[in-house]
Amino acid sequence: MENWKNLIDYRDLVVSIVGIGRIGLPTALMISNEGFKTYGIDIDQILVEKINTGGGDPPIPYLTDEPELENLLKKALKSKKLKATKNFRDYAIQSDLIILCIPTTITEQKVPDYSDINQVLKEIGQLKESLVKKIIIFESTVGPNYIEKIAIPLIEQVSELKINQDFWVSSCPERANPGNIIESLLTIPRIIGASNNYARNIVSYFYKTVFKVPIFKVSNIRTANSVKLIENIFRVVNIAFANELSQLIRRLDIDYMEVLKGATTKYNFLIHYPGPGVGGPCLPSNPYYLIDDGYKVSFTPNLITVATEVNQRQPFHIIELIFEGLNKINKPIANTKIAILGISYKANVKDVQFSSVIPILSELKKNKAIIGLYDPYYKEEEVLGFKIEKNHEFIRKDFPIIVIHTDHNEFKSLNFKEFLCECKDLKVIVDCHNTYEYKEIPNKIYYIGVGRPMKYIEKENYK
Amino acid sequence: MENWKNLIDYRDLVVSIVGIGRIGLPTALMISNEGFKTYGIDIDQILVEKINTGGGDPPIPYLTDEPELENLLKKALKSKKLKATKNFRDYAIQSDLIILCIPTTITEQKVPDYSDINQVLKEIGQLKESLVKKIIIFESTVGPNYIEKIAIPLIEQVSELKINQDFWVSSCPERANPGNIIESLLTIPRIIGASNNYARNIVSYFYKTVFKVPIFKVSNIRTANSVKLIENIFRVVNIAFANELSQLIRRLDIDYMEVLKGATTKYNFLIHYPGPGVGGPCLPSNPYYLIDDGYKVSFTPNLITVATEVNQRQPFHIIELIFEGLNKINKPIANTKIAILGISYKANVKDVQFSSVIPILSELKKNKAIIGLYDPYYKEEEVLGFKIEKNHEFIRKDFPIIVIHTDHNEFKSLNFKEFLCECKDLKVIVDCHNTYEYKEIPNKIYYIGVGRPMKYIEKENYK
Repeated sequence: MENWKNLIDYRDLVVSIVGIGRIGLPTALMISNEGFKTYGIDIDQILVEKINTGGGDPPIPYLTDEPELENLLKKALKSKKLKATKNFRDYAIQSDLIILCIPTTITEQKVPDYSDINQVLKEIGQLKESLVKKIIIFESTVGPNYIEKIAIPLIEQVSELKINQDFWVSSCPERANPGNIIESLLTIPRIIGASNNYARNIVSYFYKTVFKVPIFKVSNIRTANSVKLIENIFRVVNIAFANELSQLIRRLDIDYMEVLKGATTKYNFLIHYPGPGVGGPCLPSNPYYLIDDGYKVSFTPNLITVATEVNQRQPFHIIELIFEGLNKINKPIANTKIAILGISYKANVKDVQFSSVIPILSELKKNKAIIGLYDPYYKEEEVLGFKIEKNHEFIRKDFPIIVIHTDHNEFKSLNFKEFLCECKDLKVIVDCHNTYEYKEIPNKIYYIGVGRPMKYIEKENYK
Repeated sequence: MENWKNLIDYRDLVVSIVGIGRIGLPTALMISNEGFKTYGIDIDQILVEKINTGGGDPPIPYLTDEPELENLLKKALKSKKLKATKNFRDYAIQSDLIILCIPTTITEQKVPDYSDINQVLKEIGQLKESLVKKIIIFESTVGPNYIEKIAIPLIEQVSELKINQDFWVSSCPERANPGNIIESLLTIPRIIGASNNYARNIVSYFYKTVFKVPIFKVSNIRTANSVKLIENIFRVVNIAFANELSQLIRRLDIDYMEVLKGATTKYNFLIHYPGPGVGGPCLPSNPYYLIDDGYKVSFTPNLITVATEVNQRQPFHIIELIFEGLNKINKPIANTKIAILGISYKANVKDVQFSSVIPILSELKKNKAIIGLYDPYYKEEEVLGFKIEKNHEFIRKDFPIIVIHTDHNEFKSLNFKEFLCECKDLKVIVDCHNTYEYKEIPNKIYYIGVGRPMKYIEKENYK
């Protein structure tokens, strides 16, 4: 341990980050800018080149929505502490820590897809005796038992080495909030479990040194993985609660947003807002890691399963709201121009992974609507099979209905709201995030906010 | 409004509280001690007498667990501002406000049981023209649409009067925390909706005057009722989440209490603890008021329905844990002495309403266990068909297994934990609220905390 402590204190420790995406890159930047020689390893040659040249053109998506990363990247490149590479073996071999930030996902059958991470584990195993005295740290989200029951045996088998004797494994799941990664890394405590106390102490000392956040050591690896899953599934369940109630409460002619405001005056209530569904790299897939481990011990968590279903069905509720609006103005869906504003899964990020816009677009297309798409993070790009408009001006012409899918700041601005008032053909707004207050609704427009009864104001009330 | 304001400012307003139970009595005490002539109306003659004589012997249950109420009651009786009575008509007729604190519940078929409150509404209607200029305030928890769709039409029909013309109705749902009612009444904001603005202003002014808490005015009665339900159902869902995970996580050989501690280090997580189920006057029944209104608009809230089921099944999980302990010590359940500690539905209150102990006792009885029951709030009383022990000394003799059902302070005390160490026959502790830390477990005892893998410590480790 003294030796490791010295390596860390004198910045002689060398670190490989495998997977330099939304989590891996910021992590690599923080580590290299703290003075550690850092290798960012990824199979994506274009990504590797972009990183080595300071961001690329067009820039990496998460440099678009987290612009402070660019400065950190420049700093890291200038100091020559960071190097991106496709070559796993040659750089991993030189590293003391191998940190895995490989995205994990689920298959169409909604079971965890560990194929990418398993592939990397095999490569780690193939380091053979070069793996001796290294620590492998999992930041990727995986099932509670995956590391202990699948990953470690796999490395042991391929390497013919022994855990805790030849090498160590630790779990330090990332807990960062996309769109706000650097602040997350610098503020949210880290949960650390490891294959033994020795490794746990080293990894804890390293993370404390780099990120300066509180370290919460847990008994073992499976506990660390569970913490990560439980905190995200808590959000899945509570967003499902909001989504389910948004549907029921509006049917009772009650405004769920008003109910929420009232409920937050109670000390033990925590607000979660309804929306068009859940998306992104974590919430749609995380429950299935736990459900999968549950199946293996014959325990199906019904509440969590239903919660995922409620969220998956929410985009179809948005379709219902669109139909409700179309009915009001006596328009069929076929051949009607429908503008979708925002395609990202959440506000102010450039990311359509599992975005609820995907099933919404698919339903609209099936019903032969004429779709216009705009998202400030995807101007003029082709995404999800659609060409994204350059700006929102296209709405002016013949669009009787708009759907505010993502609550990007642009759509919340007064300018934008004023623009909508100028759209003479606009008759219906479907607002998936209640971006509008009732009092802001342009006059003579059917306004349908998720969870809220439809509102129509005859007289001029918007300035 | 000026007239009402004067009546309130000069304490000339007269108030009837119908239902002087756990919520109604403290409310009546606060109002009368603020200087208003207050009538506490209840059908229970013994309760009425006890209140008029300062608490009775044996005292009213909620005077046992909330002893500060007794002083408030003495003060109110001394000032002659409070009078309890069985006579609804004669006292309601003299009152400006009729506040309904009638407990609502559900039937065995789990549908709302509004029979008691409907009966009172009929009596209110029978006041006929004497009802003119009175305001009826609902503090009872009811479905969102119950007051507007059932209660008001019923009063109108019986009285032959018209809402908002002859009388008014308001909803100001109680939000108090049993065991901590007075503090709740003095700190938690009140949600107020009414049949019109006029009534809402009067009721708001009155509650502000008496309780000095922030008032959150909502658009209508159904919104006020929804707020109350949603904040409690939020708890039902999150306790179900904890209960479900407590079962799954321990099967994965992980300690859910440790996971929870880790998760609370994330800024957007809110902890809820697993337990033996949910009980009491609110949580077990509140979801069904919303579910019932949902049925009427053809919308079943699946997540909420599953959450109620998860909580209802949790007592049977406790039975599983008991079996797990019995298996360890090779004892059958039949003819084995099992001590149950705590029968109340929650810590430090005297209340077994919908307590999870009820299904647990029923299962143990069915399996012919010999049951010993102790609860410091029910010493030597006969409750749920059992005679409660005088103190916990009975456990010393031949009880190989105890179940800590309610986490009353007494069971958390060092004294009590030391006592358990002295019980030589004790071999298994089933701890429904994780009252113990692992390090406190008496040696040579199989310890089973809800959500935690079984722990057995061979060597002496408890001092």
